[in-house]
Amino acid sequence: MPRHNVPDVVVRRLPLYLQTLNHIAETGQQLVSSTELGRWIGVSSAQIRKDLSYFGAFGKQRLGYEVDYLRAELKRILQLDQDWHVLIVGAGALGHALANYRAFEEQHFVITAVLDNDAAKIGQPIGLLLVQPVESMAQVVRERHVEIAILAVPARAAQAVAEQLIASGVRSILCYAPTTLSVPEGVHVAYIDPVTTLQTMTYYL
Amino acid sequence: MPRHNVPDVVVRRLPLYLQTLNHIAETGQQLVSSTELGRWIGVSSAQIRKDLSYFGAFGKQRLGYEVDYLRAELKRILQLDQDWHVLIVGAGALGHALANYRAFEEQHFVITAVLDNDAAKIGQPIGLLLVQPVESMAQVVRERHVEIAILAVPARAAQAVAEQLIASGVRSILCYAPTTLSVPEGVHVAYIDPVTTLQTMTYYL
Repeated sequence: MPRHNVPDVVVRRLPLYLQTLNHIAETGQQLVSSTELGRWIGVSSAQIRKDLSYFGAFGKQRLGYEVDYLRAELKRILQLDQDWHVLIVGAGALGHALANYRAFEEQHFVITAVLDNDAAKIGQPIGLLLVQPVESMAQVVRERHVEIAILAVPARAAQAVAEQLIASGVRSILCYAPTTLSVPEGVHVAYIDPVTTLQTMTYYL
Repeated sequence: MPRHNVPDVVVRRLPLYLQTLNHIAETGQQLVSSTELGRWIGVSSAQIRKDLSYFGAFGKQRLGYEVDYLRAELKRILQLDQDWHVLIVGAGALGHALANYRAFEEQHFVITAVLDNDAAKIGQPIGLLLVQPVESMAQVVRERHVEIAILAVPARAAQAVAEQLIASGVRSILCYAPTTLSVPEGVHVAYIDPVTTLQTMTYYL
């Protein structure tokens, strides 16, 4: 259940805490201090204590955090203790790469369908699925309980597809198209755009 | 020339300012206020004025910013007024999607080579190039003046490849592998990881 008073920047750090705790757990270590956790991630121990304090008191004075307990709590907070059904729209080169990316399923994001509007692509194999027509979107979302959509379409098509997704009931969109979507309140969009990321990197060169 | 007192979070907003100014310029509009720019991007006008003040005084009292002038200045600050040569390591599904992504070249990021260590892939076409052996890395970086590398290899191979890249002279790495690289000072790494992004989104569902 999301708490609405938690800053987005804090929420964005929680997966990093969880991933780091997963690594630590693999080594068999059972307790971790906020200092050690911070050193792994590159944030201060004070930041970690403050971030986690939004959700409760997880640490023990002088002992630190119990690794397995904090992992379980973070999974619960991020709602990662269940599978999520994900729809990909766009079966181009990017859609293929995404449909074949095994890390999604390992992390409980199950790619349940890939849609495209290109007749030449519909029916073709993609990952372990077959490409379906974009017209089946509403049905797929309803029948397969899709919660998250990944937009892998060209920028010029992105807004129209996003509106179809929202009309079909999708509330979370991961957008790979280099554009900014206009969406109603209650719909959450995250963007992945390598060009923007590269444009930040050249500053440092 | 990077100024070292500018917070990273400010630098990360500059490409968004530039992209938004590009959209505004396409409409023929010549002046824009910080309020209007902020509305487009979703940050406050005070934030925009503060961010830009790190780099000089670009606005005119009551008139706002000259769109073309501010675009040119942001391009200069981000060093986007020149082409950058980019190397992709990894010719799997992701490497193919990246090599075929036209937005890179449109934004002056020229994919100059794709390397892989799989004999079955070497010599195969990818985008407009042919896959080259990973052994040619140092030569490619030197001869083609590569400044930026994109890591599209599995997580288990990422650290070793990053070390080879750094030894070859690369100072900027965009890492798609779901891992954290350990790099010496002076090397800049940015990460793109859809799983981490999805793990943030489920919080809001």
